[in-house]
Amino acid sequence: MPVKPSTVDLPLRLKTPDVWASQALEEPLELLNDHAHLEKKAATNALELLNRWPDPTPPAKWVQTMTSIARDEVEHLAVVTRILARRGGRLTKGHRSPYANSLRRLVRNGQGTRELLDRLLVSALIEARSCERFEMLSRFCDDRELAKLYAGLWASENGHYRVFLERARDLHTADDVEKRWDWMLNQEAKIVKQQTPGPRMHSGWA
Amino acid sequence: MPVKPSTVDLPLRLKTPDVWASQALEEPLELLNDHAHLEKKAATNALELLNRWPDPTPPAKWVQTMTSIARDEVEHLAVVTRILARRGGRLTKGHRSPYANSLRRLVRNGQGTRELLDRLLVSALIEARSCERFEMLSRFCDDRELAKLYAGLWASENGHYRVFLERARDLHTADDVEKRWDWMLNQEAKIVKQQTPGPRMHSGWA
Repeated sequence: MPVKPSTVDLPLRLKTPDVWASQALEEPLELLNDHAHLEKKAATNALELLNRWPDPTPPAKWVQTMTSIARDEVEHLAVVTRILARRGGRLTKGHRSPYANSLRRLVRNGQGTRELLDRLLVSALIEARSCERFEMLSRFCDDRELAKLYAGLWASENGHYRVFLERARDLHTADDVEKRWDWMLNQEAKIVKQQTPGPRMHSGWA
Repeated sequence: MPVKPSTVDLPLRLKTPDVWASQALEEPLELLNDHAHLEKKAATNALELLNRWPDPTPPAKWVQTMTSIARDEVEHLAVVTRILARRGGRLTKGHRSPYANSLRRLVRNGQGTRELLDRLLVSALIEARSCERFEMLSRFCDDRELAKLYAGLWASENGHYRVFLERARDLHTADDVEKRWDWMLNQEAKIVKQQTPGPRMHSGWA
């Protein structure tokens, strides 16, 4: 079956080449394990952000955003770990995420709403890149069950990246947010390029 | 409508008297806020435990237990925060939980599977007490929507307390687990008795 071109429209500055998908899919169980860890981290991130809305903004939208994202991510975590176990794979205890760690170093820690803005933008970047990657996997994966899993996930991650960005726009002027987002997008492109290849959602390619 | 007697069978050593429910229900929005924080903490606890299964036990059951509990708690969190917002209440940023903090001090930190056993037993105790309380609230609450919410939750918490206990029984001999559980149940009875009254799920009574 010929692979269809991508239909997802994302602001990312560096497009992942097709070769990434075939390399990441060489070890599908490793990829599922990495994926499960990322879902867990995404859920924890949303729960951590839940009580950190900026005063004096009313928290209704903020709380709703974080609880629905946490709910989606925990739901994905349950699905991915179930598939992993059924296929004889194992969730590992530890997990390294050099891509996300590099992004987190961009956050202006201890700077109030600037820190919060950066955390939201970093969360949006991770969701946007995951969205791109799931969409690619859904097209390149020969395994029907996994292709269906990935197809179901990219739309969800697309929604998350947009809603993190919306909450970021509640915090500062449009101009401030766009300037920082523009800078972050360029940083992300450099960071993703530095990653080594392998069966990971945020790996590089050779 | 006469209040029906409790039908839930729990191992707790100290039965909460009916007066607790009427006192806790005096400020239903405060109670919902406390409840939302507890759901968040329960979800975070399950996600923290997710990668801490004891070697060399195979993680399948462990992972399944923690992901399903995290999923339930995040789902409850979303429901409770939605009801809270719709009724004009607000989730507070901070939250104190003297009951859970006292229970956590019973954990033998840094002692490998003993620490893990204690964390599971403390989690089971919190779920068991929450189960008792939700069941009481479901009978004593005049507000139909809230009564329905509480009725839906107690069965879920009942399942969680049992499954935490099952995972504890995977770790040590039945004898060791029962001895520790017996001790823990007595400690919990003392701790719950020391709590001050108020609109909180784990408060005391006057």
